[in-house]
Amino acid sequence: MNGAEKLIKTLAANGVEVCFANPGTSEMHLVAAIDKQDNIKAVLGLFEGVVTGAADGYGRMKDKPAATLLHLGPGLANGLANLHNAKRARTPIINIIGDHADYHLKYDAPLTSDVKAVASPFSQWVGISKSADDLSEQLVLGLEQALSYPGQVASLIAPANHAWDMVDNDVISEITIPKPAQVSILKINETAKALQAAAKPVLYLGARALREDALIEAAKIATACGARLVCETFPVRLQRGAGRVKVERLPYFGELAKDFMQDFTDIILVGAKPPVSFFAYPDKPSEILPETANVINLAKPREDVLSALRDLANCLNAPKDPKQEMEYIKDFIQAPMIAPFESGALNPVNLGALIGKYTPKNAIIVDESNTCGLAIFPMTAGAKKHDFLSLTGGSIGYGLPAALGAAIACPNQKTICLQADGSAMYTVQALWTMARENLDVTILLINNGSYAILNVELARVGVKNPGKSALSLLDLGNPDINWVDISKGLGVDAVRVETTEEMEAALSKAMAQKSPFLIEAIIPAMGG
Amino acid sequence: MNGAEKLIKTLAANGVEVCFANPGTSEMHLVAAIDKQDNIKAVLGLFEGVVTGAADGYGRMKDKPAATLLHLGPGLANGLANLHNAKRARTPIINIIGDHADYHLKYDAPLTSDVKAVASPFSQWVGISKSADDLSEQLVLGLEQALSYPGQVASLIAPANHAWDMVDNDVISEITIPKPAQVSILKINETAKALQAAAKPVLYLGARALREDALIEAAKIATACGARLVCETFPVRLQRGAGRVKVERLPYFGELAKDFMQDFTDIILVGAKPPVSFFAYPDKPSEILPETANVINLAKPREDVLSALRDLANCLNAPKDPKQEMEYIKDFIQAPMIAPFESGALNPVNLGALIGKYTPKNAIIVDESNTCGLAIFPMTAGAKKHDFLSLTGGSIGYGLPAALGAAIACPNQKTICLQADGSAMYTVQALWTMARENLDVTILLINNGSYAILNVELARVGVKNPGKSALSLLDLGNPDINWVDISKGLGVDAVRVETTEEMEAALSKAMAQKSPFLIEAIIPAMGG
Repeated sequence: MNGAEKLIKTLAANGVEVCFANPGTSEMHLVAAIDKQDNIKAVLGLFEGVVTGAADGYGRMKDKPAATLLHLGPGLANGLANLHNAKRARTPIINIIGDHADYHLKYDAPLTSDVKAVASPFSQWVGISKSADDLSEQLVLGLEQALSYPGQVASLIAPANHAWDMVDNDVISEITIPKPAQVSILKINETAKALQAAAKPVLYLGARALREDALIEAAKIATACGARLVCETFPVRLQRGAGRVKVERLPYFGELAKDFMQDFTDIILVGAKPPVSFFAYPDKPSEILPETANVINLAKPREDVLSALRDLANCLNAPKDPKQEMEYIKDFIQAPMIAPFESGALNPVNLGALIGKYTPKNAIIVDESNTCGLAIFPMTAGAKKHDFLSLTGGSIGYGLPAALGAAIACPNQKTICLQADGSAMYTVQALWTMARENLDVTILLINNGSYAILNVELARVGVKNPGKSALSLLDLGNPDINWVDISKGLGVDAVRVETTEEMEAALSKAMAQKSPFLIEAIIPAMGG
Repeated sequence: MNGAEKLIKTLAANGVEVCFANPGTSEMHLVAAIDKQDNIKAVLGLFEGVVTGAADGYGRMKDKPAATLLHLGPGLANGLANLHNAKRARTPIINIIGDHADYHLKYDAPLTSDVKAVASPFSQWVGISKSADDLSEQLVLGLEQALSYPGQVASLIAPANHAWDMVDNDVISEITIPKPAQVSILKINETAKALQAAAKPVLYLGARALREDALIEAAKIATACGARLVCETFPVRLQRGAGRVKVERLPYFGELAKDFMQDFTDIILVGAKPPVSFFAYPDKPSEILPETANVINLAKPREDVLSALRDLANCLNAPKDPKQEMEYIKDFIQAPMIAPFESGALNPVNLGALIGKYTPKNAIIVDESNTCGLAIFPMTAGAKKHDFLSLTGGSIGYGLPAALGAAIACPNQKTICLQADGSAMYTVQALWTMARENLDVTILLINNGSYAILNVELARVGVKNPGKSALSLLDLGNPDINWVDISKGLGVDAVRVETTEEMEAALSKAMAQKSPFLIEAIIPAMGG
């Protein structure tokens, strides 16, 4: 058994089922080893940003890592932007990055780079193998790091000779999954006391606090204390829809977020860091939370958020019986709702209402609709139960790959990708893998012909009367991009729609089929 | 004047004429400043790999830097793979990477990363501004580094508040371009002596030694001493074609390269490092040069290669008069040649002959045709004079962006991009910018439906009987990619050809027009 075979056997023995890959020469022995391993599915991405973004979508839905297989420093570099998002989401991922044979590095061949230095800024753990046997030992460390609650990006550098050399020891190790850190009863009691005395409290929720079970506990706490429930602007995975707990979403723009949080007296952070302005702006504060508020950090993202909420709810004497608790939190339960929409030209609000109407039960909505998405989100609140995944790190090009990964993770659930055009272009290659794997994904490609958010930001940072050259850098017209052509060129059937009637017909068709389908929705950018 | 305006004025005052850009919110003041600067052309790329690859193509043709404008760590990360190629090519580039306002970094907003750590592995110089005034001072240092002969990748990190803050000092500094280091007369004499005594000498040429003027000197030396002229497998910019000096190209595969170099007794390195195997392979050596040879490093890539060659030619009493010298080196002058080609299905050899026939004078051939290109290269040797740019760092996705950059640099020369399909997909967004800027680029998109090189490498690294899963990771079929659809979707007219007749008609049309055109050439992969 060579090092590659032992590595892949160790992956499989520890529950890794999928490897998103874009290999090169230095990974050929790893490719051969995957070939021999029946219970690992290899999925080819035609660009590494697709590979890492898919691993992010997969990890968020499965709560366990997919592997990636990447080619040396530059191949890894192409995947970094989506690893940034995954690191911010705390998604479990195990990257396997091939490198030159260790004895070959000193020759500084053309593809040589410092792979560890490339991996470090966007990984929570980096390991380098020292031998064929060590390759699997490092993998065990890496998997344990990847699975450290709620998840981490772990990157293992695999020199080619460690893959092809024979191992001395063919025993396959099993990992020990570390338990999440628990919140102390002292902290629970302190929080309970503060909440009971609070005039206007809020639970500010992130990470695993946005899953259905945790939200029920949060709603019990909120009911007991008259608190509001607010989630991060960019949730990792929010379980929402009719019959689930309603959560308000913190606005994106700093000023609006600050206004929104202004009146709260007691702010309880649950799996979330204190919110800050996404960017800095001249003469505007970075901080969002009011200085006067009492801020309590109940549970950090890496602490057991569900247990903390359960303990706090118990401490506040909220009911535990499932029937009783749903009655108790009834004011927090989202009613089914299909928002009305008007016929004629599409706009974000009508589009949101239509998506709300057609979202099937247990759908996964992967959202990278950016400006347009701000209007869509409230319109889908009362849709059937669904998971909502968002752009946690702000690094664009996440939507299509994450939708691909989510669909691989959950083949029996419909994945809907709400995708802005500028961001879609970053990782457009994902469409091809969706076609190859015949995934149940519907892409709503929202074509407003611009980096719309930047038109807004240009004004917000204080640029007045921008000229032709400035505006041209924010404009995706000239030439107009034809997404139907691109999608078909990559093997995904597509249609272009401009009215609510056309959109309804297209959505109806898309929801009835199990194969990938792209709907190019023409929606003029706001304010032009 | 704010820091951004001073920065952009400093760029312009020091001869930077083009900024390839994909900005975001943190770069809006830089965008506004570019807007006010008439003599800097801003060119939008819809992905950062396009931006940096374009700067590489531009810098190789102009011998001076374009600026890039990139958005924070993840935006820079997307551009790293092509910066790797540029760093290997020693292309002058000045990257300007926006970062959060410096006071905002401590809040760890979602897009925060260690930008310096991201830039460092693929930059020869990294600077971070400390204030609005320092922004331009750092730029001066960066430009001087970028222009250090023959060129370097310099990366300047620009915190957003240094862009929007007012400067104290509005004097625009001029850079001092450092002179290239000269090769000592001692080294020249030593090399001359070795050459005169050598049984079978070779000049192994790289970097600026592959320009027309340097090659004439090299041919004079070779004539005087009976040496052969060999260039790096992946030249930065080789000036070749009928009437220019012929140079043999070192084979790509390590074993072939080793055989090729086997019999040389004296190997003179001129602007080139000793060649090594591109990858390591089990039981094959990394080194290419024979142990028995006398290897002399005449001029390092960062030393003045042209002067060294000239001094050496003089030392060998080669003629200096332009007429005399061309007569003297006549055996090294490439004769015009149009290779014959057969009608019927296209193959790499026929394709090469056709390209040779249709390449117009002073064309720029940007080559990322990979496996197919090995057969094309010899067929274009006797074409009209042209520049040949190749994949110096092995990081794929360079071809389309570099062609875009070369065409911006040299609008009066035809750019021909020889582009393999798998690599094209990495930075396909470049087509859109070619359409927007209406560039005189013809793309020969060679569609063999596979990562053909990896099928070869799989066997070469010793994988026997690869199974379905392994082969699927090297296969770009299922679904077949339709490059005509993709190209048209991005605004570039395109046609698909399968025979030499169709290719000749398409090439003839492409060479007669000045706007971008993509020819999808269907060529089955070698060996299936």
